[in-house]
Amino acid sequence: MSDILRIDQNQRRSRGVVHNGFIFLTGQVGNDMGGDVRQQASEAFAKVDDMLSQAGSDKTRVMSVTIWLRDLEDYDAFNEVWDQWIVQGQSPARACAKAQLADPRARVELIVIAATAAA
Amino acid sequence: MSDILRIDQNQRRSRGVVHNGFIFLTGQVGNDMGGDVRQQASEAFAKVDDMLSQAGSDKTRVMSVTIWLRDLEDYDAFNEVWDQWIVQGQSPARACAKAQLADPRARVELIVIAATAAA
Amino acid sequence: MSDILRIDQNQRRSRGVVHNGFIFLTGQVGNDMGGDVRQQASEAFAKVDDMLSQAGSDKTRVMSVTIWLRDLEDYDAFNEVWDQWIVQGQSPARACAKAQLADPRARVELIVIAATAAA
Repeated sequence: MSDILRIDQNQRRSRGVVHNGFIFLTGQVGNDMGGDVRQQASEAFAKVDDMLSQAGSDKTRVMSVTIWLRDLEDYDAFNEVWDQWIVQGQSPARACAKAQLADPRARVELIVIAATAAA
Repeated sequence: MSDILRIDQNQRRSRGVVHNGFIFLTGQVGNDMGGDVRQQASEAFAKVDDMLSQAGSDKTRVMSVTIWLRDLEDYDAFNEVWDQWIVQGQSPARACAKAQLADPRARVELIVIAATAAA
Repeated sequence: MSDILRIDQNQRRSRGVVHNGFIFLTGQVGNDMGGDVRQQASEAFAKVDDMLSQAGSDKTRVMSVTIWLRDLEDYDAFNEVWDQWIVQGQSPARACAKAQLADPRARVELIVIAATAAA
């Protein structure tokens, strides 16, 4: 009945909210907070991919990614993971800044807006 | 005539901009900059609610909220206000980071994107 | 064939991604990293204008601008450039916070979402 679809909702937030051709994702971090930035970024991208697939979308349909890094020294290592994640010719817009996250062990958070399934 | 609607515009910005089923809000802070994070957050949410209602929307139609907190020590107290504001089953996506705001007394800023009125 | 249009793409990102009436831009910084905030902001706005024009849009159709400033002491000087850039009566929503950017010399970054060409 609703024109808004919510994915993976808990008591506090929806991991994804779909409306009118777009999906907005909750900021995604890694699973193992003891991991380095490569591991945390890989885990966060895997969660993004999973959320997108639940909306019939995928990483070739991402509009923008806002990247928060705890340490800018992680910038190059993060980009290695990024460069492997994106699909050449179908990359999103992005922005990256240093930001301290709610969990002090989190090294990276990804905030994604994507197009949902092609009509 | 225009396909873009602006709400509560001053010389510098529009508090809300509506287009194609979405409304983008200017970052909202509290009114009383002497208040604690609970008070500032409550005031900011009230302003968000008011902006959304002017676009025929409401808090059950929010896509995403980016939360900037001056002090991560305020995280739990902010979440108490958040948990009272959201409607269970209709929560938005969100992301939260520490950020120093233009007014150094501001403890929290909310950046909201929402769906406008259901068709 | 695609319902997603990408503008000015390099190996890592697209400067602009268009879908369903909106364009999302990569965070734009100035050209001369030795410049003060006025110069860097002017250069960043010029790049935003150029990206928007490639999507048949312009600054009167911007939905929101997220502004990251390296130094909040630059806030008033940035706003002087902002106030000259916007068109009165057609201003976007905005939010501004202090953030350290990937290039430590960058004083300001602009993250823009805009409506594309009017139907």
